[in-house]
Amino acid sequence: MKINILLQSSAQWLTFGSEETSIAISSRIRLARNIQGYAFPTWAKKIERLELVEKIKPLIEKSRAMTEVSLSETMDCFTQLEKQILVEQHLISREHAAKSAGSAVVINKDRTVSIMVNEEDHLRIQSFQPALRLHEAWKLIDELDTELEEKLPYAFHDKLGYLTACPTNVGTGMRASVMLHLPGLVLSEQINQVIQAVSKLGLAVRGLYGEGTEALGNLFQISNQTTLGESETDIVERITKVTQQLITHEQNARAMLIEKKPRMLVDQVCRAFGILSSSFSLSSKEALNLLSILRMGVDLGIFPYNLRTIVDELMITTQPAHLQICWKSKLTTEERDALRADLIRKKLSGAKKPDTKKFIKPYTEEKNPNTNE
Amino acid sequence: MKINILLQSSAQWLTFGSEETSIAISSRIRLARNIQGYAFPTWAKKIERLELVEKIKPLIEKSRAMTEVSLSETMDCFTQLEKQILVEQHLISREHAAKSAGSAVVINKDRTVSIMVNEEDHLRIQSFQPALRLHEAWKLIDELDTELEEKLPYAFHDKLGYLTACPTNVGTGMRASVMLHLPGLVLSEQINQVIQAVSKLGLAVRGLYGEGTEALGNLFQISNQTTLGESETDIVERITKVTQQLITHEQNARAMLIEKKPRMLVDQVCRAFGILSSSFSLSSKEALNLLSILRMGVDLGIFPYNLRTIVDELMITTQPAHLQICWKSKLTTEERDALRADLIRKKLSGAKKPDTKKFIKPYTEEKNPNTNE
Repeated sequence: MKINILLQSSAQWLTFGSEETSIAISSRIRLARNIQGYAFPTWAKKIERLELVEKIKPLIEKSRAMTEVSLSETMDCFTQLEKQILVEQHLISREHAAKSAGSAVVINKDRTVSIMVNEEDHLRIQSFQPALRLHEAWKLIDELDTELEEKLPYAFHDKLGYLTACPTNVGTGMRASVMLHLPGLVLSEQINQVIQAVSKLGLAVRGLYGEGTEALGNLFQISNQTTLGESETDIVERITKVTQQLITHEQNARAMLIEKKPRMLVDQVCRAFGILSSSFSLSSKEALNLLSILRMGVDLGIFPYNLRTIVDELMITTQPAHLQICWKSKLTTEERDALRADLIRKKLSGAKKPDTKKFIKPYTEEKNPNTNE
Repeated sequence: MKINILLQSSAQWLTFGSEETSIAISSRIRLARNIQGYAFPTWAKKIERLELVEKIKPLIEKSRAMTEVSLSETMDCFTQLEKQILVEQHLISREHAAKSAGSAVVINKDRTVSIMVNEEDHLRIQSFQPALRLHEAWKLIDELDTELEEKLPYAFHDKLGYLTACPTNVGTGMRASVMLHLPGLVLSEQINQVIQAVSKLGLAVRGLYGEGTEALGNLFQISNQTTLGESETDIVERITKVTQQLITHEQNARAMLIEKKPRMLVDQVCRAFGILSSSFSLSSKEALNLLSILRMGVDLGIFPYNLRTIVDELMITTQPAHLQICWKSKLTTEERDALRADLIRKKLSGAKKPDTKKFIKPYTEEKNPNTNE
């Protein structure tokens, strides 16, 4: 299998498991670039796209900034399931998964860089980091981009900047985003207010898999809307600041829940654990939402710290394609739901009992006012 | 407290805990009787009702068939909460709980007989038995009724039979009913069909607290609709036969689920246990529905047999009035939900892990076709 290397473990930036990733899970920057003299992928004939892949792919593979390549293939080399794995690991877009020969993907060893060739643009260069580390992601991608620019004549306009297939990307061609885990803001019903405020700052708030997707598992992506009139470092700086504010909001929301609704909070977390560790059938959506609440339970200290990595891994490995590829080529939805529940039960079977003492005192431990016990 | 004796343990017929009560939980017969020369309670003046209570109550208390009386009070002696306890233990009707002086209730020691004085009729004599034991219930109530008839001039018409306040009770004045636990028919979506079939036989199907109430916890009451043209023993015989058929239907539904949808069944049962044993807030309705599924889990052998009595007890003791009276006089809904969850967690804390092996084999125990492990 082409993607075996991706299945041995999850990318470190996705399951970093430190205090730093508790709310800001990961950072991502992507640059849209095009090559002079070639039509944009959507308008190009197949032969042109094939030619471009043949030209670009070796250059990427050899670039110093990629260090070691783990995967470099044209999109016809993957099965549908393998493409879905790449999507679930956030390494390619859903749109790119629909491509075939004439498009390609190159991923480095630690999966911090993934370059899509002939997606919407000739190049979609992506860099990933755990936690809120947009500056680091920018440094890496800038280096790689500069290196590639030395070898490839980028389509660039003195006034407009980098030219892209879609006008919304013209200029920097950059989209910087942070994946945030905001269960506190969701549970305290402040999330819509926060999303509105962020939107007014010219930033976009999206679900787990980008544009137009649902905010499953209380996961939200914050990214810049505009690519004109603002330098790359300004964008990175702005999103970093807004994210820091969102982290504070989330922390405040959790503190407020602990103070005002400790039982509701403990109930949500312990129920999530109860259901995950006893179910025999779990849909992808239900599992993600429950794992999300359990993840917060770890942050709150209700569950021990080592459970976080297990939860983060499960958030990736219990998604449909990951489940199927680890088992057999084809599973029905019902079979997937069963396998998902079985895996989660097994992974959580060794978990310690929740420690809820610091939040609430059960009635059964209080003195009953009606008895003399 | 007047009703202390009712709180020390539940009535044996409600928590019988044998194989016999697995589907048919309990049987109940009530007779409506009125005394010649007195207006029906709704039409009677207060003074007439007080007079009748004073006349009847001592006669009931002294009757041989009552053996020992545990509670004999006029309805003004109870607090609202105590009345609700009597309703939750099925000893008085919701309507009777609204009564005050001028109405009374007499209950025997083992709570197999409860007589309401001046409910809708002068006398509503009730007898209770565990499981499907309508014949036994009839024997007991017939004896008591005959004894009372010797001392009280019942309103009786040669052609119509016993005269009652509501024409639907004229004749035998009898309503015989069986409480059935039918989670298999509910889960296999056959319940509506079954209810329709039973209705066509002239029997009524109702929820947990009788007429107009919801079928919470998969609990259904089957009773006769008519009181004219059929003898008491014929009614008892007919309901017994229909109930036996319903028990078979429920057994078949469970067998079908075990064969066709074992994972769904195990998932439902284990989830119910998972939620009950980890929640910190449970509404009365959610608790009852989950306890109902767990009860079936015991019947199926997923949980050990001794859990049944615990579950049956919890179905009564976690109801609003029982919770409040055992704790303090007044609890908000939120406090009740918290106390309920705490009590259930405590009661289930010693329960053994579910044994699901005979129904399904988890994927994680199968040989993965993609590995050589």
